[in-house]
Amino acid sequence: MAGSPSRAAGRRLQLPLPCLFLQGATAVLFAVFVRYNHKTDAALWHRGNHSKADNEFYFRYPSECGDVHAMVFVGFGFLMVFLQVGFTFFLAAFALKWSTLVQGFLHSFHGGHIHVGVESMISADFCAGTVLISFGAVLGKTGPAQLLLMALLEGVLFGINEFVLLHLLGVRDARGSMTIHTFGAYFRLVLSWVLYRPQLEKSKHRQGSVYHSDLFAMIGTIFLWIFWPSFNAALTALGAGQHRTALNTYYSLAASTLGTFALSALVGEDGRLDMVHIQNAALARGVVVGTSSETMLTPFGALAAGFLAGTVSTLGYKFFMPVLESKFKVQDTCGVHNLHGMPGVLGALLGVLVAGLATHEAYGDGLESVFPLIAEGQHSATSQAMHQLFGLFVTLMFASVGGGLGGLLLKLPFLDCPPDSQCYEDQVHWQVPGEHEDKAQRPLRVEEADTQA
Amino acid sequence: MAGSPSRAAGRRLQLPLPCLFLQGATAVLFAVFVRYNHKTDAALWHRGNHSKADNEFYFRYPSECGDVHAMVFVGFGFLMVFLQVGFTFFLAAFALKWSTLVQGFLHSFHGGHIHVGVESMISADFCAGTVLISFGAVLGKTGPAQLLLMALLEGVLFGINEFVLLHLLGVRDARGSMTIHTFGAYFRLVLSWVLYRPQLEKSKHRQGSVYHSDLFAMIGTIFLWIFWPSFNAALTALGAGQHRTALNTYYSLAASTLGTFALSALVGEDGRLDMVHIQNAALARGVVVGTSSETMLTPFGALAAGFLAGTVSTLGYKFFMPVLESKFKVQDTCGVHNLHGMPGVLGALLGVLVAGLATHEAYGDGLESVFPLIAEGQHSATSQAMHQLFGLFVTLMFASVGGGLGGLLLKLPFLDCPPDSQCYEDQVHWQVPGEHEDKAQRPLRVEEADTQA
Amino acid sequence: MAGSPSRAAGRRLQLPLPCLFLQGATAVLFAVFVRYNHKTDAALWHRGNHSKADNEFYFRYPSECGDVHAMVFVGFGFLMVFLQVGFTFFLAAFALKWSTLVQGFLHSFHGGHIHVGVESMISADFCAGTVLISFGAVLGKTGPAQLLLMALLEGVLFGINEFVLLHLLGVRDARGSMTIHTFGAYFRLVLSWVLYRPQLEKSKHRQGSVYHSDLFAMIGTIFLWIFWPSFNAALTALGAGQHRTALNTYYSLAASTLGTFALSALVGEDGRLDMVHIQNAALARGVVVGTSSETMLTPFGALAAGFLAGTVSTLGYKFFMPVLESKFKVQDTCGVHNLHGMPGVLGALLGVLVAGLATHEAYGDGLESVFPLIAEGQHSATSQAMHQLFGLFVTLMFASVGGGLGGLLLKLPFLDCPPDSQCYEDQVHWQVPGEHEDKAQRPLRVEEADTQA
Repeated sequence: MAGSPSRAAGRRLQLPLPCLFLQGATAVLFAVFVRYNHKTDAALWHRGNHSKADNEFYFRYPSECGDVHAMVFVGFGFLMVFLQVGFTFFLAAFALKWSTLVQGFLHSFHGGHIHVGVESMISADFCAGTVLISFGAVLGKTGPAQLLLMALLEGVLFGINEFVLLHLLGVRDARGSMTIHTFGAYFRLVLSWVLYRPQLEKSKHRQGSVYHSDLFAMIGTIFLWIFWPSFNAALTALGAGQHRTALNTYYSLAASTLGTFALSALVGEDGRLDMVHIQNAALARGVVVGTSSETMLTPFGALAAGFLAGTVSTLGYKFFMPVLESKFKVQDTCGVHNLHGMPGVLGALLGVLVAGLATHEAYGDGLESVFPLIAEGQHSATSQAMHQLFGLFVTLMFASVGGGLGGLLLKLPFLDCPPDSQCYEDQVHWQVPGEHEDKAQRPLRVEEADTQA
Repeated sequence: MAGSPSRAAGRRLQLPLPCLFLQGATAVLFAVFVRYNHKTDAALWHRGNHSKADNEFYFRYPSECGDVHAMVFVGFGFLMVFLQVGFTFFLAAFALKWSTLVQGFLHSFHGGHIHVGVESMISADFCAGTVLISFGAVLGKTGPAQLLLMALLEGVLFGINEFVLLHLLGVRDARGSMTIHTFGAYFRLVLSWVLYRPQLEKSKHRQGSVYHSDLFAMIGTIFLWIFWPSFNAALTALGAGQHRTALNTYYSLAASTLGTFALSALVGEDGRLDMVHIQNAALARGVVVGTSSETMLTPFGALAAGFLAGTVSTLGYKFFMPVLESKFKVQDTCGVHNLHGMPGVLGALLGVLVAGLATHEAYGDGLESVFPLIAEGQHSATSQAMHQLFGLFVTLMFASVGGGLGGLLLKLPFLDCPPDSQCYEDQVHWQVPGEHEDKAQRPLRVEEADTQA
Repeated sequence: MAGSPSRAAGRRLQLPLPCLFLQGATAVLFAVFVRYNHKTDAALWHRGNHSKADNEFYFRYPSECGDVHAMVFVGFGFLMVFLQVGFTFFLAAFALKWSTLVQGFLHSFHGGHIHVGVESMISADFCAGTVLISFGAVLGKTGPAQLLLMALLEGVLFGINEFVLLHLLGVRDARGSMTIHTFGAYFRLVLSWVLYRPQLEKSKHRQGSVYHSDLFAMIGTIFLWIFWPSFNAALTALGAGQHRTALNTYYSLAASTLGTFALSALVGEDGRLDMVHIQNAALARGVVVGTSSETMLTPFGALAAGFLAGTVSTLGYKFFMPVLESKFKVQDTCGVHNLHGMPGVLGALLGVLVAGLATHEAYGDGLESVFPLIAEGQHSATSQAMHQLFGLFVTLMFASVGGGLGGLLLKLPFLDCPPDSQCYEDQVHWQVPGEHEDKAQRPLRVEEADTQA
């Protein structure tokens, strides 16, 4: 059941080797480059004679660890249940470390060193979240070595795309309609398209969720939903900026629950509700304000954005997803296009609109922190809007090229891709509990039940 | 199993129509009335030239989103497991939006607009929590349209009751022994009494929890228990006030765990413990300090209050709940009377006592923030105590009349009340996972097992 | 199944009596001794004329309640699934109250009273965590009265050991490689050794986890992993100190995920991964920086420490744990030695190293808050290192003597120790859900299936 001896022997080396290599490489890079920043370093901080309450830590950390961190790990982990939760953890933990390096080189490299602090932790968590969004494309179809390769590639491209948008183009993307959700989703879709395996349909039932898994997914959804305001607010401007970001996200999330229930009942069989619609729409409403939640979107604007996103997500799930698979040969297993893809693009477009409407009257001196280039007179509102639109285009390019490149890499023959028959099987990579102790006590699994029947 | 075609068609319209109407109505109200307050608005905040650390956000938000929000959604959600978690989510999200409007009109309406900020989010979460307390009365016996109607009605009455108590009577109710727990519980009990359906007993076994559900309930309990200090502290006076509230709640919660175990073993079969006692008592201890946790209750006072609440809750569960059903025709499915009702009333009475004992010596200048009317000389300690007592009476009135009114509304013939045989059936409203894909793989459910046996 | 009538009658008194006695005793101690400290007391706080933002509450509480509290209760609770979660809750809640008293007498007793505030809550949570670490040794083998006795004893010894280390020896142990993890683990191991019951092997299969339990354990792991930075940072110096502690812990935790996967695949059957390795190693990496995370460990140092801890933990699980049981007669049911024991000792040694390397150049004025005795010239770096090493020795002594003493106490003949055949049986102490309502509906349990087969 675990493959022939030679395959197993191959795996025994195939996973440890790249792991140990990357382990060593990142460690060396950390040793050479990474240093505390001046808010974290004992000597530098005390030299400044700050009040203790001044430390950035107190403004960022409560959102960060309790919330963003929980969101990425518990939220995303729960949504991908069963032992795959082990791989989720594996990937996310590696992505944290890797993106500390990538983002450090791009954003906080001076004097020959990367300077890290609480912002580095948050940025790294965002990158890990993006990798987990894309991860579903290859979930169950690839081995852990391939997952690592994908995380490596995506971490770099995520960093470069973010750098181009935020630093070169002056695009505002408070948290991440473009850089996280659009990028992660289209990276994944293109990757799925390249890796399409028509025969895999036959083992599709193994994706089928059982009752408790669905309950876990619901819990994961509620977790994400709860922490989304913190997720969006974690890196926006201190003071009214973070306050407004949290409030806008909160209203967008609460927005169209009713609309989604109505829609789900309208399109469902016998007027019944589909839990998957509810979940996807709930989260799509958090995605859609990723770019604009720090702006003066107004509470009504947040509600409207949420309504739009929930509607698009539910309709996409019902009508567009089947087409995606049958016509475009893209297996979108967890419906990422409805949850992150379309809402992310919508959110980017909403950002274009809001930037185009920004005035000195509406923002006062707060314009400096929301649209600094407009406040400094470098951009007009219209040119800021054009830059936002161009940023969306750049993101789609990076995601598509990255996903394509990733797909080709993962098809390289020397990588140990599991045959169709072993996809979605935990036992290939994991010692299933009980197996090595007391076979009789282990609950029967699907394929065994098939065999015995 | 999903009802006759005509009933299904009815439902297809019955849910979407009120949903879309309410969706539209609340959106219009938001557009016309709701604005950022001066701590959230970009222009207003920066005009004030505040230090960034001054923003209310940093004092309130960590308790709010990480804790109150998690408590309402995860805590209450977990306690009502299975697909009902979907309705929990639905109701709570609607209640957030609705109570933002109701409370906004009552508390922060000036210059023709409602001004919202982090306090609005917390208040709305409190209202959502109250609705969820009452929700159990109709759980499984009503359709989603009726749940909406109930949330609408209860949201308004909650807001008015709170306004009368806090603003007209000058009652202190730091967080919510009266306004949340007593109100929610008695609203529900009266509602249950009006909606009593004797035949429903026959399908009662469907409420029976299975092993994993109980585990979920335990997790929900621990969640609530953990976050209760934040829940109570979220809106009390900044500084020592919040500090003291959290500490009192913490001691009350830790108080009589031993006493409850002792009592549960004493009244249980064969001296064995009953998990339900433990859970109810644990939470009752958080309820009982809802009014008085911001006062100088003293750590010992908090312990004593917790002990009392745990004892009353366990005894109520064992001896009073059966009487409630047999004599008073009230089906209190989740034991809300023991968890929120009696402890809430106890908490209100404790508030009367503490107010009556308040002196300038004990509170110093802190009296201003805990009992402002006493500090300003408008009330003596005794008259403050009388007002507290009157507040409890008003709350019971509002809850009873509201629950009665709600029950009559829900019995209106044009609302699609499910027949007894379909109560507690998820499939009536939800597409159960697996059903539409691969029937053979779906785990058997209770009523199918009955049929096949 | 629930024991003979006389045993049940014995239990009916045996649990309530000590519970009620302790309940009363702690209540009296609270009434006589415990008072609010000056940051919590209404009169004292307002007399000081502080800014509201000055209150310690805002610096400590967000880590405390949202994180440390959640970690202790949800994290540890999840790791010990099934109804044992009830006992976890019971023990932890009692330990909170008890250690408030013990630590209060040792640390904040002046003017005849204990003065409590947010630091007391955090310290009490830490003690509760330590008790839960040791709790696994007796899990399923003892009755609740014995658990109480153990918590009483361990709470006192924990407090004294911490007092000796931090106050008498001037040892730094930011959070708890020595005082929490080493102490808790070796207390438990010695206890297990004294209580060793060779016949218990026969019922060992009842410890065997089923699929969902493992999933719960994974969730518990991720919870702990997420909140570990807060756990370590909760009590360190405000400002750069907390910032650095969180960052070091974060890097240590993310450190050797890859290394652990590599190692697990190398030592696993057929090159497959073992979830238990992943979980233990993930948490061991948080333990190892418990002493040194507030120092200028550097990000690379944190990575290296994490790598070492993960490796030691995985190798210990694979090679040392079987020896521990067969040769040393220590049943280490949850592998506490690999998770807390060895990583705790490693962390203490790392603390020795870091103290020995501390210089005025590296810490600047921050030396005062990290190594005050060096900054004040009372200790040289070398003598601080020697004191750290001596602190580890003292901790191992306290833990061993305490565990031995505890074991002998628990063997006293008048305590009602369950016979081997009833170990790990929930029904002995709990009314299992459904049992008293509708026997037919209850899912079959292992021993019933055995009987019926």
